[in-house]
Amino acid sequence: MTEYSLFTSESVSEGHPDKIADQISDAILDAIMAEDARARVACETMVKTGVAIISGEITTSAWVDLESIVREVINDIGYDSSEVGFDGATCSVINIIGKQSPEINQGVDREKLEEQGAGDQGLMFGYASDETDVLMPAPITYAHRLVERQSKVRRNGILPWLRPDAKSQVTLRYGADGRPEGIDAVVLSTQHNPDIALADLREAVIEEIIRPVLPTEWLSSETKYLINPTGKFVIGGPVGDCGLTGRKIIVDSYGGMARHGGGAFSGKDPSKVDRSAAYAGRWVAKNIVAAGLASRCEIQVSYAIGEAQPTSISLNTFGTETVPHDRIVAAVREVFDLRPFAIIRDLDLLHPIYRPTASYGHFGRDPYTLNGAIAFSWEKTDRAEALKAAVS
Amino acid sequence: MTEYSLFTSESVSEGHPDKIADQISDAILDAIMAEDARARVACETMVKTGVAIISGEITTSAWVDLESIVREVINDIGYDSSEVGFDGATCSVINIIGKQSPEINQGVDREKLEEQGAGDQGLMFGYASDETDVLMPAPITYAHRLVERQSKVRRNGILPWLRPDAKSQVTLRYGADGRPEGIDAVVLSTQHNPDIALADLREAVIEEIIRPVLPTEWLSSETKYLINPTGKFVIGGPVGDCGLTGRKIIVDSYGGMARHGGGAFSGKDPSKVDRSAAYAGRWVAKNIVAAGLASRCEIQVSYAIGEAQPTSISLNTFGTETVPHDRIVAAVREVFDLRPFAIIRDLDLLHPIYRPTASYGHFGRDPYTLNGAIAFSWEKTDRAEALKAAVS
Ligand SMILES: C[S@@+](CC[C@H](N)C(=O)[O-])C[C@H]1O[C@@H](n2cnc3c(N)ncnc32)[C@H](O)[C@@H]1O
Ligand SMILES: C[S@@+](CC[C@H](N)C(=O)[O-])C[C@H]1O[C@@H](n2cnc3c(N)ncnc32)[C@H](O)[C@@H]1O
Repeated sequence: MTEYSLFTSESVSEGHPDKIADQISDAILDAIMAEDARARVACETMVKTGVAIISGEITTSAWVDLESIVREVINDIGYDSSEVGFDGATCSVINIIGKQSPEINQGVDREKLEEQGAGDQGLMFGYASDETDVLMPAPITYAHRLVERQSKVRRNGILPWLRPDAKSQVTLRYGADGRPEGIDAVVLSTQHNPDIALADLREAVIEEIIRPVLPTEWLSSETKYLINPTGKFVIGGPVGDCGLTGRKIIVDSYGGMARHGGGAFSGKDPSKVDRSAAYAGRWVAKNIVAAGLASRCEIQVSYAIGEAQPTSISLNTFGTETVPHDRIVAAVREVFDLRPFAIIRDLDLLHPIYRPTASYGHFGRDPYTLNGAIAFSWEKTDRAEALKAAVS
Repeated sequence: MTEYSLFTSESVSEGHPDKIADQISDAILDAIMAEDARARVACETMVKTGVAIISGEITTSAWVDLESIVREVINDIGYDSSEVGFDGATCSVINIIGKQSPEINQGVDREKLEEQGAGDQGLMFGYASDETDVLMPAPITYAHRLVERQSKVRRNGILPWLRPDAKSQVTLRYGADGRPEGIDAVVLSTQHNPDIALADLREAVIEEIIRPVLPTEWLSSETKYLINPTGKFVIGGPVGDCGLTGRKIIVDSYGGMARHGGGAFSGKDPSKVDRSAAYAGRWVAKNIVAAGLASRCEIQVSYAIGEAQPTSISLNTFGTETVPHDRIVAAVREVFDLRPFAIIRDLDLLHPIYRPTASYGHFGRDPYTLNGAIAFSWEKTDRAEALKAAVS
């Protein structure tokens, strides 16, 4: 075994400060895209005690009430009173948004639409593996499910003393065959009302959050449970921790199992390849695994600002390929067009479909219809047949 | 070949907006650490047209003039006039910093110092490879050298029309033996005065920045040069792009060649394992490669908030190990103590040594004496002999 025998991934709930910021940035993006699909949006948010600051660069013909959007997102998450530490109705909303630099814009807009230049340089990765049925690594998948469950039992009243801020972490043990074998450790910290006793909280978290979510066969007497290890987590959200857009990029993607190019997603319209090409990378990798050409696949793409064609496309199949690597690379080039214009067209990205991506991961989610388009379209395995045909 | 045949990494200069934010956060950390080494600092910065906002959580007995520090950092970088788009002397400095949550603090402080709990949960990676003499991946190494050179020729007057904001990107071609073979593409965008013509700029960038830095044997007639591909980059810094702390975590680490846990470094005192355990991870991995136990090594560690012992330590040597993998793992456990207290002690991290880390990478730098301690102490290969002894 020269590979990891243990692998740990973490996730955070929608009430985590960095995720509040991501959701505000994507809600603003959606509101603008609903009226002006070709708007240029790069929206960054900072949340701290009593204040949400929105910043970045936006060029649009739409008029949207940004302040209301910010307040609505914060309240929707559950920060709606001074008691929980943050109140969407009464916090300060500061807007220091500017316009997109016309010099950047001249690199992006082209007379021929399909020659649209990348909105920035950068590198992006896409990844898929057959470790789970959603073709995602198992550790991040279960880390997400834990915090999703936290949100569910908070909202449906099963554990009414829960508050919005939470984090999860799962350490998975892998066998010599590279398959998940069991769970070594689970960490879960959740914000709570002051009136719940720690022992009761710990028991309820195990019974109502951890057990319903984690596969029984992976839990054993050796599984360590670390629940609210600080002992107290009443103060949460932006009071306890300043939140910024784009500061949970590993939670947003593959939980550390795949490489990352560093670019954030939330608040960015799809002319920014940090977002659209990372989505396309997932689409490519997932279709390769769905087509059975490899059981694990990572793709790297890179761009130069203002250029349509990627500066590089490269593939890693970790020795799991079922046909020669070169033929997979050739098939990818034949079946996928990774210019920004083509990605936006093929994944139908010019719609307000982004807010749901801003919590619980951008990948491994089921596509569904939202605002007249398909959210999570990059999860479709609609090119698997074409890939199979191309390699044969 | 099932591994990447091309690999791309990028870097940015000290004048890039996200890096301005990182440097402000680390300058504040240093100023506080100089007076109060046990302060708890988590400082986040946002820079946008005409304004620097400092936020986060700080608990300290030190009194420091934060406003002056912010202004000094901005001016030092070269943003000192409206002409260049940002002026440290006249911009607005807004301070919305709060205190560390006492509930987090109770998880970190322990009666026995060595039992100090991790300041947060999370996963971190360390990496080293013998691809370069600094035991770093080649693509990020050369991407850094390009923007360092941009800064040098801007400051020493060789190219006086350069302005502070710049980005570089290097696509390296790897041979079947996994060794770098040549450079496929170089992207360099630099901010400039309005009075330099694009053709002159491109020629000067090739002659004065690219050629002095990149190995001649890696350049060929097939190398693509993309210099200021948007055509114009007079507007730069925070006017063109909002900057945030912690948004260049791949530039800060291994350029995407290694995995990343997602935690940012700048502005965080070493009780935050996002920073200290990532530094320790580099130290471990580099010592393993320096000891000749593997030519490529990645380590993952993870923590639970409030706990001293890592929840997992796991190693990947990618088939390059020269002794059995299990013995390397055992040697790491014998030679390194990865509790937060021990990391801080062994790497001597309670000193103002952080500001220089905030540009041009936290890894692959030469250790040197700074403010009574060693900056980049995690680059020392002082445990290589102990590792060799432990495996034999
Ligand atoms: C530990 S805080 C980050 C550190 C913080 N900036 C500081 O000053 O120490 C990171 C996240 O941990 C969670 N958190 C906050 N308070 C906590 C507590 N008392 N116990 C456990 N987790 C907590 C929240 O989700 C928060 O966003
Ligand atoms: C392209 S900007 C990010 C996109 C931006 N937020 C927007 O609204 O489109 C990212 C970085 O590119 C660089 N940049 C800014 N203006 C540029 C230009 N005109 N040409 C090339 N690079 C530029 C700066 O380093 C900047 O921080």
